[in-house]
Amino acid sequence: MSTPSSTDVTPATVAAVQLALDGRWHALRDEVRARDDFAHLRVDPDTGVESYRAAVGEMLVRLADEGHAVHGFPVAVGGRGDIGGSVVSFEMLAYADLSLQVKSGVQWGLFGGAIQALGNAEQHARYLPGVMDLSLPGCFAMTETGHGSDVQSVHTTATYDAATGELVIDTPTESARKDYIGGAARDARMAAVFVQLYSGGERHGVHAVLVPVRSDDGEVLPGVEIVDDGHKEGLNGVDNGRLSFHGVRVPRENLLDRYGTVAEDGTYSSSIESENRRFFTMLGALVRGRVSVSGSAVGAAALAQTIAVRYGEARRQFAAPGSDEEITVLDYLAHQRKLLPGLARTYAMRFAQNELVEMLHDVQTTREAGGDVDEKRQRELESRAAGTKALTTWHATATIQACREACGGQGYLSENRLGQLRADTDVFTTFEGDNTVLLQLVAKGLISGYADDFGHLDTLGTVRFVADQVLDTVAERTSLRQLAERLRAVAPGRDEEDVRDRSWQVKLLDDREEHTLDGLVRRLRPARDKGISPERQFAIFNGAQDHLLRAARSHLDGLVLDAFVRAIDACTDPSARALLGKVCDLYALSLIEEDKGWFLEHGRISATRSKAITAEVNRLCLELRPHARALVDAFGIPEAWIGAPIATGAEQRRQDEARAHAASLA
Amino acid sequence: MSTPSSTDVTPATVAAVQLALDGRWHALRDEVRARDDFAHLRVDPDTGVESYRAAVGEMLVRLADEGHAVHGFPVAVGGRGDIGGSVVSFEMLAYADLSLQVKSGVQWGLFGGAIQALGNAEQHARYLPGVMDLSLPGCFAMTETGHGSDVQSVHTTATYDAATGELVIDTPTESARKDYIGGAARDARMAAVFVQLYSGGERHGVHAVLVPVRSDDGEVLPGVEIVDDGHKEGLNGVDNGRLSFHGVRVPRENLLDRYGTVAEDGTYSSSIESENRRFFTMLGALVRGRVSVSGSAVGAAALAQTIAVRYGEARRQFAAPGSDEEITVLDYLAHQRKLLPGLARTYAMRFAQNELVEMLHDVQTTREAGGDVDEKRQRELESRAAGTKALTTWHATATIQACREACGGQGYLSENRLGQLRADTDVFTTFEGDNTVLLQLVAKGLISGYADDFGHLDTLGTVRFVADQVLDTVAERTSLRQLAERLRAVAPGRDEEDVRDRSWQVKLLDDREEHTLDGLVRRLRPARDKGISPERQFAIFNGAQDHLLRAARSHLDGLVLDAFVRAIDACTDPSARALLGKVCDLYALSLIEEDKGWFLEHGRISATRSKAITAEVNRLCLELRPHARALVDAFGIPEAWIGAPIATGAEQRRQDEARAHAASLA
Repeated sequence: MSTPSSTDVTPATVAAVQLALDGRWHALRDEVRARDDFAHLRVDPDTGVESYRAAVGEMLVRLADEGHAVHGFPVAVGGRGDIGGSVVSFEMLAYADLSLQVKSGVQWGLFGGAIQALGNAEQHARYLPGVMDLSLPGCFAMTETGHGSDVQSVHTTATYDAATGELVIDTPTESARKDYIGGAARDARMAAVFVQLYSGGERHGVHAVLVPVRSDDGEVLPGVEIVDDGHKEGLNGVDNGRLSFHGVRVPRENLLDRYGTVAEDGTYSSSIESENRRFFTMLGALVRGRVSVSGSAVGAAALAQTIAVRYGEARRQFAAPGSDEEITVLDYLAHQRKLLPGLARTYAMRFAQNELVEMLHDVQTTREAGGDVDEKRQRELESRAAGTKALTTWHATATIQACREACGGQGYLSENRLGQLRADTDVFTTFEGDNTVLLQLVAKGLISGYADDFGHLDTLGTVRFVADQVLDTVAERTSLRQLAERLRAVAPGRDEEDVRDRSWQVKLLDDREEHTLDGLVRRLRPARDKGISPERQFAIFNGAQDHLLRAARSHLDGLVLDAFVRAIDACTDPSARALLGKVCDLYALSLIEEDKGWFLEHGRISATRSKAITAEVNRLCLELRPHARALVDAFGIPEAWIGAPIATGAEQRRQDEARAHAASLA
Repeated sequence: MSTPSSTDVTPATVAAVQLALDGRWHALRDEVRARDDFAHLRVDPDTGVESYRAAVGEMLVRLADEGHAVHGFPVAVGGRGDIGGSVVSFEMLAYADLSLQVKSGVQWGLFGGAIQALGNAEQHARYLPGVMDLSLPGCFAMTETGHGSDVQSVHTTATYDAATGELVIDTPTESARKDYIGGAARDARMAAVFVQLYSGGERHGVHAVLVPVRSDDGEVLPGVEIVDDGHKEGLNGVDNGRLSFHGVRVPRENLLDRYGTVAEDGTYSSSIESENRRFFTMLGALVRGRVSVSGSAVGAAALAQTIAVRYGEARRQFAAPGSDEEITVLDYLAHQRKLLPGLARTYAMRFAQNELVEMLHDVQTTREAGGDVDEKRQRELESRAAGTKALTTWHATATIQACREACGGQGYLSENRLGQLRADTDVFTTFEGDNTVLLQLVAKGLISGYADDFGHLDTLGTVRFVADQVLDTVAERTSLRQLAERLRAVAPGRDEEDVRDRSWQVKLLDDREEHTLDGLVRRLRPARDKGISPERQFAIFNGAQDHLLRAARSHLDGLVLDAFVRAIDACTDPSARALLGKVCDLYALSLIEEDKGWFLEHGRISATRSKAITAEVNRLCLELRPHARALVDAFGIPEAWIGAPIATGAEQRRQDEARAHAASLA
């Protein structure tokens, strides 16, 4: 593979790489970038919770006034009908203030999204215009104090009273409080409340009901109890709170009833007979929230890396041998190791995220247009959303942390943004689905081959599932397999072979996925033996839980590499392709290096090759070092949005001054 | 190895384990635990920077009034002369508020410590009483904006003016500002300023000078410029700021002159001829700060784990198969994997920290008593302080993060403390020495065998050093080697052997250390070839930088295991020994598992054995699960200090209520 020298990377290269990273919605990204007011959507970090919330509230009004909300809503109610665009424009807010971003996500993505996905046409017409223009501030009340991951077990009830035609909402215990609800503590007038629906003395499973919680002038309504969640590690501009309901009555028409409705006489009906299936269909319709969080994580990682790489290029420390000139810290291998494999991973995550957004857009656009979406495709979307969100959010946590450490004391000052980025994004790994639970969902999809009964995302649902299903055939393999076959030209894995050979890298990841999955199925199979006790079933499942998580990760690593390869294929600029190829090598090889224990343990690589991989990661760090700035520039974050003084010239100015001073003494 | 059933772990066991963890200063720990007012030393997290600083200022006065400061200072000036005790009592403050802890560390550890370590007896008598009773609030001005890690290159100057008998302090450029200086922004009246000392037209290297910065009524003095560092990611109760000096004059007597002094006529003299050696002797005298940060990291990790384990024992999620009862989250293997190996590591870190504090105490007590301290012993202390601090602070960052994720949304609420613990401790990995730089210091000590010229901690000092020294003999091996030899009874590494065999674990870590170090020396040796260019020298060093860091870590892992084994040996309670043995197994095996790629690559373990290690880590997690609460109880954090509602009964109460409600419906 040829090595582009630094002169090979021109502004045109950067532009071509940016186009690749921007993906299908590149024009929308440019539209958002052109908004110079966007840089001012930030809040003094020393603001207390109440004034931070107030500032975010005002900025949200501004965003609404400027039409930021319209992207994802139906054209019929004044939206743009651009579902992918709504996710992308949301992602761009990560460069402004993450509280503002999450606040907008609550209003337009979760609250508005619930009405859009679960409501009928009349409800759309009645509520969505107010959602978009913020005249109806709302919140999304799903999670309960006692039930975060296991949403199907929520304990809040809505009981239909046929005598009055009303639903009566109740919070039976403290565990059943709706908790961490963004918008609840201060702004929301209405909540989309997820309840167990009862009518005619029967339970019909989880449904969502619109419940007014505050009057137009902000007074909490009778029967509604709101407790502030108070100060949080981050996202303090979002007013999270706890909602309880005590005999609160709303008209029957407030039930979001696309998937299940109650007639005036209390008769329940639904187009989906199985309660379980209905539940997962509803959850599946809400997948956009998870995709949005994933995008935000990628955006935050890109911003942190932009700051850390720029500082690493300006900062110098320790004089070079035989010289008075100090060495630029990014020239140290240890510093490159801290930043560059993570940067390659952000590229990989962005490409995977772009594919996820496209998939979401295509599936949901088809459905909104009344078209038919193959159930398998819907399940794939859900699985990919779950898995991508887990990878991107964990990546954001790890890489922003690495960036903070790489910037030392400067990284700890709030003016340089890294600390707040870390704190604000920290909750991403556990909200919109706890990552560990999400990986189990992915693994289950792989085991079941996206079978019809797929969907119950709890861990023990998996046990039952495994007990019920035929496990002899593993799911159809992913596209990685096809890629592996397409790329496979030479026999893989010989020591003399180039570790930068893409087909070898792909084959290695594909092998790991296949082997891990096969082993998992073998370990879980005894759980379906006849007469096995529930305790033993649990023990089998639990003993293999780390294997299950590994299987999910192996699968996802493959999907991500696949997306990276496709993005390179789609790029037509030769120097951009060459640069992206190296970044992809660094991504793939550092991934393999990280898990070299597994590859060695399973005879997939030799000791010699394992050492060669480490050497090659070091070599790629050195090769990409001259292009580090180009690589972060290609994220296309407008200069005015970056904000951190260490990334915008302060360090360089100081270095220049110190050098001039030294010269004046000499 | 016998498995203690849960009934084997009695309150007496917990007490015995606590005694082992408490170490030599257990009585002092109990003395601090008995202070019930200690629980109230915390600040509302929604407090703005200024009021947080004010609150911390008041709490510090209270600590001073109660004699918290006296431990480490000489008896001659009213202290207790208990150096180890000063570190231990500092560590205990981690359970209160970390801003308060760091603020106390600035005043008594850094500012007071500089006067104590670098000043003469007259200076002790003059300043230390005011340091202890807070009538002289000070700060420690070493780090500059442009020089964090490379302290030897500070640019601030102190020029002796023989005409007036004064030292003139100057900040020549913005890079030379003293930065991140705790106490500078608000409270400090005096600064211990690290400067390049000039007299008679010559530079004499780095020295410390006491410079008044504010008047008694808090006005900034003429020629002193103070800029607030503003809001930070954490530790916002500490008033960090930037100090610049413009022709500030102080009497000659303000030079802290134990290691170098200027006579009235400007003649410079020092008991240490080499400037380099003098500098590192001074730095070495200040090692207590690093030891203290390390202790604080261990305390913060222990507190986070106490919270997460208690919540994990109360929290239930997802019904068990064939049951309505939900499963306690700590019963899931994935949850155990998140928390228990980290808990074992905190045990290991505490034992290593205890040994470090003893070593510090013994070395410095001997020296303060006028006794002779072997230079090699001093170097070992510095190396161990650097390495232990790197390990403990990275561990704190990782494990508090894991605890936050394990507590989900609850972990994100400030009332549950984990977010603030993370944010407050984050800077520990880069202050008091950047961890990556510290590991290089450790590695260099290993290569040079603590040779006389040891000490220059910059990375390129290493290059020069390597070029100058004979590298054919690696340093004497650590005590791990002796332990390995003592324990070595059977041939190591056979697959049928018990992976819980301590001698095998020790041998494995010892082998890795030896092999890594030997390889490093081979890689660096060409740097001392005659006629080699500086560029090539740097390239050789830089290309091996990851190897260098690995060598340091390998060495330190051995020291830590060694400390753990010694702590078990010293424990006389049989059930405590058995429990500690399992925790040590989990520590050692999860460490080996984490680096199994290396052990496989180098033929130290077979693939079969590698898989057996993973299985054994899982088994140990299941075996230790019933004792998780006992293990965190043994940290001995008083109930009133824990503070987090999720750890002090709130979740259990909710579970009980929900269960009673379900029963009332049935």
